[in-house]
Amino acid sequence: MLRTHTCGELSIKNEGQHVSLCGWVHKSRDLGGMTFIDLRDRYGITQLAFNMEVNTTICETARSLGREFVLKITGVVAERSNKNLKIPTGEVEIIVSEIEVLNKSITPPFTIEDNTDGGEELRMKYRYLDLRRNVVKQNLLLRHKTAFEVRNYLNLQDFIEVETPVLIKSTPEGARDFVVPSRMNPGEFYALPQSPQTFKQLLMIAGFDRYFQLVKCFRDEDLRADRQPEFTQIDCEMSFITQEDILNTFEGLAKHLLKNIKGVETKEFPRITYADAMKYYGNDKPDIRFEMKFVELNHIVKEKGFKVFDDAELVIGICAKGCAEYSRKQLDELTEFVKKPQIGASGLVYLRYNTDGTLKSSVDKFYDESELKKWSEALNAKPGDLILVLAGKKEKTQKALSELRLEMGTRLGYRNPEVFAPLWVVDFPLLEWDEETNRFYAKHHPFTSPKPEDIPLIDKSPADVRANAYDLVINGVEIGGGSIRIFDKDLQNRMLRLLGFSEEDAQAQFGFLMNAFQFGAPPHGGIALGFDRLCALLGGSDSIRDYIAFPKNNSGRDMMIDSPSKISDAQLKELNIKVNIEVPKVS
Amino acid sequence: MLRTHTCGELSIKNEGQHVSLCGWVHKSRDLGGMTFIDLRDRYGITQLAFNMEVNTTICETARSLGREFVLKITGVVAERSNKNLKIPTGEVEIIVSEIEVLNKSITPPFTIEDNTDGGEELRMKYRYLDLRRNVVKQNLLLRHKTAFEVRNYLNLQDFIEVETPVLIKSTPEGARDFVVPSRMNPGEFYALPQSPQTFKQLLMIAGFDRYFQLVKCFRDEDLRADRQPEFTQIDCEMSFITQEDILNTFEGLAKHLLKNIKGVETKEFPRITYADAMKYYGNDKPDIRFEMKFVELNHIVKEKGFKVFDDAELVIGICAKGCAEYSRKQLDELTEFVKKPQIGASGLVYLRYNTDGTLKSSVDKFYDESELKKWSEALNAKPGDLILVLAGKKEKTQKALSELRLEMGTRLGYRNPEVFAPLWVVDFPLLEWDEETNRFYAKHHPFTSPKPEDIPLIDKSPADVRANAYDLVINGVEIGGGSIRIFDKDLQNRMLRLLGFSEEDAQAQFGFLMNAFQFGAPPHGGIALGFDRLCALLGGSDSIRDYIAFPKNNSGRDMMIDSPSKISDAQLKELNIKVNIEVPKVS
Repeated sequence: MLRTHTCGELSIKNEGQHVSLCGWVHKSRDLGGMTFIDLRDRYGITQLAFNMEVNTTICETARSLGREFVLKITGVVAERSNKNLKIPTGEVEIIVSEIEVLNKSITPPFTIEDNTDGGEELRMKYRYLDLRRNVVKQNLLLRHKTAFEVRNYLNLQDFIEVETPVLIKSTPEGARDFVVPSRMNPGEFYALPQSPQTFKQLLMIAGFDRYFQLVKCFRDEDLRADRQPEFTQIDCEMSFITQEDILNTFEGLAKHLLKNIKGVETKEFPRITYADAMKYYGNDKPDIRFEMKFVELNHIVKEKGFKVFDDAELVIGICAKGCAEYSRKQLDELTEFVKKPQIGASGLVYLRYNTDGTLKSSVDKFYDESELKKWSEALNAKPGDLILVLAGKKEKTQKALSELRLEMGTRLGYRNPEVFAPLWVVDFPLLEWDEETNRFYAKHHPFTSPKPEDIPLIDKSPADVRANAYDLVINGVEIGGGSIRIFDKDLQNRMLRLLGFSEEDAQAQFGFLMNAFQFGAPPHGGIALGFDRLCALLGGSDSIRDYIAFPKNNSGRDMMIDSPSKISDAQLKELNIKVNIEVPKVS
Repeated sequence: MLRTHTCGELSIKNEGQHVSLCGWVHKSRDLGGMTFIDLRDRYGITQLAFNMEVNTTICETARSLGREFVLKITGVVAERSNKNLKIPTGEVEIIVSEIEVLNKSITPPFTIEDNTDGGEELRMKYRYLDLRRNVVKQNLLLRHKTAFEVRNYLNLQDFIEVETPVLIKSTPEGARDFVVPSRMNPGEFYALPQSPQTFKQLLMIAGFDRYFQLVKCFRDEDLRADRQPEFTQIDCEMSFITQEDILNTFEGLAKHLLKNIKGVETKEFPRITYADAMKYYGNDKPDIRFEMKFVELNHIVKEKGFKVFDDAELVIGICAKGCAEYSRKQLDELTEFVKKPQIGASGLVYLRYNTDGTLKSSVDKFYDESELKKWSEALNAKPGDLILVLAGKKEKTQKALSELRLEMGTRLGYRNPEVFAPLWVVDFPLLEWDEETNRFYAKHHPFTSPKPEDIPLIDKSPADVRANAYDLVINGVEIGGGSIRIFDKDLQNRMLRLLGFSEEDAQAQFGFLMNAFQFGAPPHGGIALGFDRLCALLGGSDSIRDYIAFPKNNSGRDMMIDSPSKISDAQLKELNIKVNIEVPKVS
């Protein structure tokens, strides 16, 4: 080792010791007679002291060092006169007797500070410098620790980690695949997995009983801030279980992580059906750090002459505690908010329950005080509260009120990232109708089993069939989802037919799985948790990018290595492919 | 849970308990009045007993069940009259009161036994059935346990696991890349990593200090039995260290695994230079479970009129203990062995040191007993030993004798897979001359640093430059290799120039790394261990395929899912590529 200690471990206990440290020049301060350098490594910062009078040569060397120079220093640990009790090493400094410059640095394009002056693009290009910043480094340390604790927990529960292949087969169902041309099999392609779904089911058929894997998955989708073309899942599957066993096992995992990573003890997770989640929160991933549940007002508000409500399929409201005194401007802001195209409400009705007990609404013309009283009772409002009401087509209105509810939660400070409110959403519908293609899609995926009691509905009323499917939601973020799987060839075939697969397509795509079902498939089910998102949640951030060492930008580019890039004609030829960019025709 | 216990945990202590088990019908035996079924799950086998007189209905059901049917049974644990003490559950059986057939099975295409009747191809196609066999399952359990212990050890040593990207940039150096067309960046491609080499170096520049990752890597090479297009590495890197620190850290890891996985305590690993490995074993990954070192005989055997030896650049021998009595047939076999084209010796000279003290060689015509005595002394042979001698061009002869040494080791039972003989091979040459392309290649990779004392040789005698590079070898298998890296932009540039990169190419391929070197790169180095191979070694097997859940065959095909496969024209169009298979021209 070039060092005896790290920059994070020396304290007053080491006073008088001769030590060697290595690290980067974080900051230096020249105070005339004395020069101080903060030397930084992964583990912390230690102050180096140089006295012009005692050792002129070395002090002059120290003064010549630029930011981010890499040093090896030797010296003696001494008590500081001016202590910094905010950092573990802040009581000591090193009286340096030797400096070796291990490497120089040109001036970095941005400062290596928590609040850096570098813009996102610059930081992406010089990601290795961005990673030197303490905040970014801490994110990746948290990620490491989380992965370690996930494995510890699952290993203790007899899960075994099995690596499934990365070079698999393209399937047209679901999102777009990334594909890989096969040189040895001309004209054929591998695909990168969107998830190891079929492989984990095959592992259950193989009798592995409890499988998990922290695994890279790939989706060639147009990217948003919280999406990456490659992402990591905690992928799990169990045999001989019921849904209850899976919920308990992974509730255990979530509790283990909240406790060991965040020091937070959590009670039993509430469970809510998909139907109730939509009814009370207008959202299948409700943020339950705060109440503010939806209340349906149809039976109260209709037939009083207010056409908007009379014509509406659904009239729903929420009660914002203590907001009766919202100004005109604030109410206008909320109206603008719900009218934004991505939210799409046509307007907002409010009712102030003033502290003096009076009720004042934006629709007083149609509703007198005794009517408004009914609203406030339905919403359990108290003097000082503000009721916000939306109306219109059911689903659109639920979605809009859900956004307004979250906006109010944010405004009222109810969405503290250090508070964790997990829940299970259960009984998802099996199928989802797509207006555009005029067909059903699997809400979860084609291998999800219907609830046995709903199987008779498959033919007559497919939209009403509920699945043994569940999501783990924390703070309004879908952390993971899973289901009990079909393990019977005929039922699987029937499902695929319902999803529009021909017998032939079903066989070509999933034949290997359905064949496997014939050799004694056990009852099984599982879950997949989004690991990037889980880390971001535990770190208190919305952005998964901050928790990925080398993320890609919204065009799928790695700005640091400048990838993707062109490849040589020789490579293309060997792979039996040609680039074929169609130039749009000019008419 | 559908069960109260697994099939591996009941013992005489559970006698009288009501239990439920789930599993597969492994075997059934119908003994007239009694029927027995061995029920199998991941954890073991438990015997189920059915008495025709006591419960006719259930006994008849039991008799109707085929192999690999999936059952849930309920019954009472009873002591067996006919105990099987070879298995943990062998003292008990379940008197079954209820059977539920959870799933049927058609007859599997091969038996689910350690010694199956299924050929390799059939087992690959039905890999999920092959994985039910205890031997294959145990391999993957060993793999899981090994990965877990690797992480435990490295975590305790302050390494942090960082996931590096899978979609990276193609580089022409080294093996062929698998590439991935980018839909969003038409005409451009990602490449799958052959290793995360540049990323781990960037993590060191980022100050991560100690990095590791169990990571999938990809090489589009023509496959052999012990190669797979995707494979797993334990990839590691450290900063502020010397070679000595890396050897110690990873010797510690190897010891930890041998102890915790195999229960084997190992002493300090011997170290040998590359030069000595070639001199004494003709091999840079010597199997040192046995001695049988090469002895050079040039100075003894030359100028005695034997033209073969006189013309040879190198004459070397080994001593096979106790083999003096080898028959003519055995010696002919060895001669045939060394003359095989892939070994390429032109002949084999032997010298028997008979137990009566006489010496008898195949070249008695040229060497009298006193000359042969010198041979035997040089090789430290004793009465009863057999000396085997090869001669010819240096490297070819070393290689051939290395193969013969291994063959003799195998014949003499010196290569017990339960004995582990690790060593470090150090001081590899930096460069390797390629006759075909008439240029130097990096022996390890272009980022390996030369030994400082050899830097002056770079220009005048490049082939003599030694690198700070090392391999971990166990039982003749290269388990891993690494090096101390270059961390200086100018030296890196010089190396790339030596390897034939133009300034432009160097910048295009590795510009991001060399730029990074300018911002304070610390001294660093690392190692990558082949995880598949390590597991195979710990499991006592030569074949990595047995330790991979879903391996590919020699054409890179996954026989089970039938991949790679054709993709649709729509997919190709979206990706801006065309299939372009050149039909060989008929002249």
